[in-house]
Amino acid sequence: MHYPNGKKVTVNAAKPSVTSGTIYSNRGMTLEEDINETNDYYKNTNRAIIHKKPTPVQIVQVDYPKRSAAVIKEAYFKQASTTDYNGIFKGKYIDFEAKETKNKTSFPLSNIHQHQIDHMKQVVDHGAICFLLIRFSVLQETYYYPAENLFSHWQKQLNGGRKSIPLDTVKKEGYIIPIQFHARVDYLSVIEKYYI
Amino acid sequence: MHYPNGKKVTVNAAKPSVTSGTIYSNRGMTLEEDINETNDYYKNTNRAIIHKKPTPVQIVQVDYPKRSAAVIKEAYFKQASTTDYNGIFKGKYIDFEAKETKNKTSFPLSNIHQHQIDHMKQVVDHGAICFLLIRFSVLQETYYYPAENLFSHWQKQLNGGRKSIPLDTVKKEGYIIPIQFHARVDYLSVIEKYYI
Repeated sequence: MHYPNGKKVTVNAAKPSVTSGTIYSNRGMTLEEDINETNDYYKNTNRAIIHKKPTPVQIVQVDYPKRSAAVIKEAYFKQASTTDYNGIFKGKYIDFEAKETKNKTSFPLSNIHQHQIDHMKQVVDHGAICFLLIRFSVLQETYYYPAENLFSHWQKQLNGGRKSIPLDTVKKEGYIIPIQFHARVDYLSVIEKYYI
Repeated sequence: MHYPNGKKVTVNAAKPSVTSGTIYSNRGMTLEEDINETNDYYKNTNRAIIHKKPTPVQIVQVDYPKRSAAVIKEAYFKQASTTDYNGIFKGKYIDFEAKETKNKTSFPLSNIHQHQIDHMKQVVDHGAICFLLIRFSVLQETYYYPAENLFSHWQKQLNGGRKSIPLDTVKKEGYIIPIQFHARVDYLSVIEKYYI
């Protein structure tokens, strides 16, 4: 996990995985890094303004040393109450969550939380363009997957249906995003082609 | 300052003031509290989905005790790279910053940072409804102030002009927001009346 200061924080299994991101430091960039780079490119080329929200942290103890910056001495990672990314593209409100899985045949719904579904339904209700970016890291494939489709699989799961979305279904209901040099995960091209 | 777990963190002068919020615990709610309550009300009545972004924190050291949650042992408050609030209302992308001042006659531009101006210009370029909520806490008055007007005062300041916006100008170029029981800072009513 990279924090905005550029320092690398080693993440191990004990950390509550907020983004479900898995670190493959020897295998190129994580999905989060690719998206951050893509968003920077979008901003620099004035194509869209999309930001990742800061990691939500529950602060318990803060010290205020004289003549220097406040130091947070005890804090915990907490679950986000919304998705990780939002912003504006051609006047449209954009909202999405990015998920990486090692699974080669399906996307496990355990990567998503109920409150994220709730949030996505709310923004879709109000006219948002809302989706998941799903990376199958072993396959090195990244998909744009519409929130509306996610909702129906989520509902089926709640009714005792399967706990994952098969890769074939992701391919059928979503769109593969080719990896590019600039805009490594060029999700706006999908939106432009199919949603605007 | 309230963190989302409901714990109150005492903020003193040594803390780099990210939101420039001043705490008046004996004098009712802060602007931030009022806005959070308003946003909850909007969400619960399905009028709009607007969230405050988490406080950006630069994490330096994390401990991973066995069988318990990761503990952040050293971290610092950092300046936000965007505004504090965004979301969607009637399909429109909404983006704003909230500022409280004790000043009775003008709004000091020192409450705003260049990077926030940059962000606001970018989203306005893409069609956002973007504004400041300014509270004159001594007067107990809160104003909706359009980003476009802010830009011109900011530019004048950079060219050697005055470093604040007179209250009269805020009144003329903005809109007062009456304090209500529900939706204590009902900024959407201004947007609905003048911008949609």
